[in-house]
Amino acid sequence: MDDSCMPSCPLCDKVFHYQALSAGELVWEFGHSIAFLGPWQYYPGYCIVVARKHITELFEISSAERSALMDEVAEMAEAIHQIVKPRKINYEWLGNQVPHMHWHLFPRQENDPNKLKAVWVELEDIESNPEKKARMEFCERGRDKLIQRLRGCLNKSN
Amino acid sequence: MDDSCMPSCPLCDKVFHYQALSAGELVWEFGHSIAFLGPWQYYPGYCIVVARKHITELFEISSAERSALMDEVAEMAEAIHQIVKPRKINYEWLGNQVPHMHWHLFPRQENDPNKLKAVWVELEDIESNPEKKARMEFCERGRDKLIQRLRGCLNKSN
Repeated sequence: MDDSCMPSCPLCDKVFHYQALSAGELVWEFGHSIAFLGPWQYYPGYCIVVARKHITELFEISSAERSALMDEVAEMAEAIHQIVKPRKINYEWLGNQVPHMHWHLFPRQENDPNKLKAVWVELEDIESNPEKKARMEFCERGRDKLIQRLRGCLNKSN
Repeated sequence: MDDSCMPSCPLCDKVFHYQALSAGELVWEFGHSIAFLGPWQYYPGYCIVVARKHITELFEISSAERSALMDEVAEMAEAIHQIVKPRKINYEWLGNQVPHMHWHLFPRQENDPNKLKAVWVELEDIESNPEKKARMEFCERGRDKLIQRLRGCLNKSN
């Protein structure tokens, strides 16, 4: 790890070792961030853009660095938009569990369950809800194809 | 309204008429956005930064415009951070109900209920939960003072 890493941060660890990840996870290597396909695909196309550096608030970095990072988030969002054609993308960096900058990009579709609410409300009872569990398992099957299509889209724009 | 407004968009309407809003709502007029104190203060210091233009996805605008907007979001977040000293700020632009760019900035404290989860999970049952309703009402009292303190902070940096 280099100077910008925090030894106890799981996302510092992830971006440092990302090349060892399975093919079903890494989507794109940007200059300031790495994009991963979300660990679950209840909302197909869900990606996470993780900053390479350990940044914990938006105001900690220079305007130039923030701009470069947000350009990458926007580029990833555009690729998702082209592939899964959502009605809207939700952009979220919460950091309640892991503060290291990571933008959740959730493509939201017209026929999403609970479409007017945040994804966290829908997912809260997933462990006890067989219908939701079934959707989660079904959506999981498309991971590899999704990654290939997202990469194809990013390849064209880079 | 000007060319960048959508007639049926409630946030276009809000930013166009913001000067007519009550003193307990407007926090700051930025060049590309207007910051409002959140309509409820369950998380004291919660603000919403609304783009002046009708933007519905991060990739719709130029890098320069995105950068200017995100600088304003960062500046608002820094002021919130200085005033309420949270453990983390949640940055969220969902747009499920109103797509027009508006960043929710939720300061999250160490003693927050459900501190590891998104605010939407905590708030989902508020109408039927007297304890949560009481917290909401209690936090509502500090609006005017919060706005004054946030403005004082932004005044110093502008």
